[in-house]
Amino acid sequence: MPDLPGGDADFRVVAARARDAATTLAVVTRAAKDAALGAMADRLLAARDPILRANAEDVVAAEGSGSGAHLLDRLRLDDDRLTGMAQGLRDVAALPDPVGELVRGSTLANGLQLQQVRVPFGVVGIIYEARPNVTADAAGICLKSGNAVLLRGSSSSLHSDTAIVEALRQGLATTGLPADAVQLVPGRGHAAANELMRARGLVDVLIPRGGAGLIRSVVEESTVPVIETGVGNCHVYVDAAADLEMALRIVMNSKTQRTSVCNAAESLLVHEAVADEFLPMVVPALQQAGVLLHGDDRFAACGGVQPATEDDWGAEYLGLEMSAAVVPDLEAAVDHIRRYSSHHTDAIVTGSQPAARRFVAAVDSAAVLVNASTRFTDGGEFGFGAEIGISTQKLHARGPMGLPEMTATKYVVTGDGHIR
Amino acid sequence: MPDLPGGDADFRVVAARARDAATTLAVVTRAAKDAALGAMADRLLAARDPILRANAEDVVAAEGSGSGAHLLDRLRLDDDRLTGMAQGLRDVAALPDPVGELVRGSTLANGLQLQQVRVPFGVVGIIYEARPNVTADAAGICLKSGNAVLLRGSSSSLHSDTAIVEALRQGLATTGLPADAVQLVPGRGHAAANELMRARGLVDVLIPRGGAGLIRSVVEESTVPVIETGVGNCHVYVDAAADLEMALRIVMNSKTQRTSVCNAAESLLVHEAVADEFLPMVVPALQQAGVLLHGDDRFAACGGVQPATEDDWGAEYLGLEMSAAVVPDLEAAVDHIRRYSSHHTDAIVTGSQPAARRFVAAVDSAAVLVNASTRFTDGGEFGFGAEIGISTQKLHARGPMGLPEMTATKYVVTGDGHIR
Repeated sequence: MPDLPGGDADFRVVAARARDAATTLAVVTRAAKDAALGAMADRLLAARDPILRANAEDVVAAEGSGSGAHLLDRLRLDDDRLTGMAQGLRDVAALPDPVGELVRGSTLANGLQLQQVRVPFGVVGIIYEARPNVTADAAGICLKSGNAVLLRGSSSSLHSDTAIVEALRQGLATTGLPADAVQLVPGRGHAAANELMRARGLVDVLIPRGGAGLIRSVVEESTVPVIETGVGNCHVYVDAAADLEMALRIVMNSKTQRTSVCNAAESLLVHEAVADEFLPMVVPALQQAGVLLHGDDRFAACGGVQPATEDDWGAEYLGLEMSAAVVPDLEAAVDHIRRYSSHHTDAIVTGSQPAARRFVAAVDSAAVLVNASTRFTDGGEFGFGAEIGISTQKLHARGPMGLPEMTATKYVVTGDGHIR
Repeated sequence: MPDLPGGDADFRVVAARARDAATTLAVVTRAAKDAALGAMADRLLAARDPILRANAEDVVAAEGSGSGAHLLDRLRLDDDRLTGMAQGLRDVAALPDPVGELVRGSTLANGLQLQQVRVPFGVVGIIYEARPNVTADAAGICLKSGNAVLLRGSSSSLHSDTAIVEALRQGLATTGLPADAVQLVPGRGHAAANELMRARGLVDVLIPRGGAGLIRSVVEESTVPVIETGVGNCHVYVDAAADLEMALRIVMNSKTQRTSVCNAAESLLVHEAVADEFLPMVVPALQQAGVLLHGDDRFAACGGVQPATEDDWGAEYLGLEMSAAVVPDLEAAVDHIRRYSSHHTDAIVTGSQPAARRFVAAVDSAAVLVNASTRFTDGGEFGFGAEIGISTQKLHARGPMGLPEMTATKYVVTGDGHIR
């Protein structure tokens, strides 16, 4: 059994080690980082047995404490998932290095050369739930973007996370990069999370990954700058000018292709002009797929539809449920979305160019889609190759966050003795 | 005497009005915003008498309460300053509109069109001190970037701020844009600031402008995402390979050209190899300019130099004082800067390309300068045309913030019925 990394250290010591590691990482080459990611993947596979044994301990404990099937599914590792985690590290190695990218450059009137270049944040904190795969994913993305990471998972995945971090650190060490680039925050429970959240100056950015409750508490309590991720109450609006067969495909895909994810649709809005035709198409189709509808009066008049309450309009069901309403026009749809959307992803289905243009301009969400499923708001689908999460805040990054979003910038100004 | 804008309204009402105004502003044309900025400038000049009367009230009260000369100077308005404020609004009108700018765009493998475009934040809160000119500056920058602004100045500039906001609102109204795009937060004192800082969901971004104490309290207490601005403990490092005449010019300019600003140098580091030659040049020159030096042993051996305490290395004097040390090599300079810098601006003077390259890579500050005065870290000098402040945090914006930094982005995804 490996030592618990950092198990004997207090938070400030761990954070100081992370800062030292970040200082080294900021100036290492892409080749060195890619080699380390490969070694991390190798060690993860080599440590298959101890990792799966550690995970089995967590799973038995979670079963014993009566955890739900959903949590157990996310917690449980097997050969396939471990192989996927290792492959994820190799995929990140294959992506371009964002560090050093020139964001803008110019020569000023006085001859000063001005360059804005991407640099790592430094130390990134990740607070997440009982999903051991996030441990490797987050470590890989942070390393590639030149950041040291402080990981704080759930108590119920502590054995798994510990074994995974141990393997990743061994991989780093074999290639000569500082093992302290990847560390678990010592301790679990709220006190450990609190130390991370109050570590302004020690930690540069904090990213919570998990459910709405976790994210809300981090946002409320953190003095470290936070990137808020993930809550998705996504809408599909079927416009008067929609191709209704296309609308049906998009609604079904947005709602049912995968229901437990933040980019699944949770609410359907239908223009009054097509309601008589579209409701008899979409209601039975959703119901046959097992979706329970919470509808306004028009929808509730269809068989099997429950009347929606005010809470339904704001609900992120993450399951086979959907709220649904008929709206008098596009502006009413926009108003509804403005009021209830979590500003993650909202889609319009329409054949009308003016309607599409107005919807795109008026809906203030991280992603606004025209004639496409809400399920496309995803770093992988967007071609980013890796994703640390989907930001629903406006500061720094909005929408799927890839490697460039894991960096800050620095101005480099070069002169020949320039003074003012 | 005009009504106090928002004086009868509670904070949530004011914030809701700002949200409505922001919704309108987000989709108005550049031409409409530029016309409004012109009208705001006109009204500011037309309201010269009531504004100067209101300002005189504030100045008399501040004098009565024994405020220092520095505060009074910043508080006091005159014809020239008012003309400058109006010209500032016209200058902002002349700048490109950041809203709608395409940040990146591509067509995905499946034919989906992906565009990332700049959009306004929505509602921006500004917390600042007794500087009435900031009222107009911030309102202009926020309007041009499509944001509604909630302004919370100091109690000691309440009459001035109220009169200025009234004029700006009248200018907006004459061109048909919502006057509520520019509002004062009702009330003053800590309670009013607190409402603004806890208004997550109502206010999108909060920018404190002022001294270190103000900024620290906003950062600690705000649940609204904050952009931290301004504290500058800036260093000039004179390398072994420096042209010492150039180094002298840069040190003198960085320290003495203007001392009360965040990009003034506060600390001087000199490579040991040139100390014997450079100290006899720089110490008398600084002293003749009235600068009190707080030096290490080497500097303190020169006449008139006080021994530096640990506090001196971290001090932002904002006046005619400077800490100074001799370092054994470039790495020691980098270590010193890492430890004490506020990560605003740090400069190297050197003729060595490897030294410049190492310093630029290793110093993690918003701006790193080579052979140029620290005073160049400024939105105006960088050619941004307008500046809301200089960010010293890593999230979202770092360094001088112009109009593009006052926006978020949105992904617009367009398909032909795409599903996953």
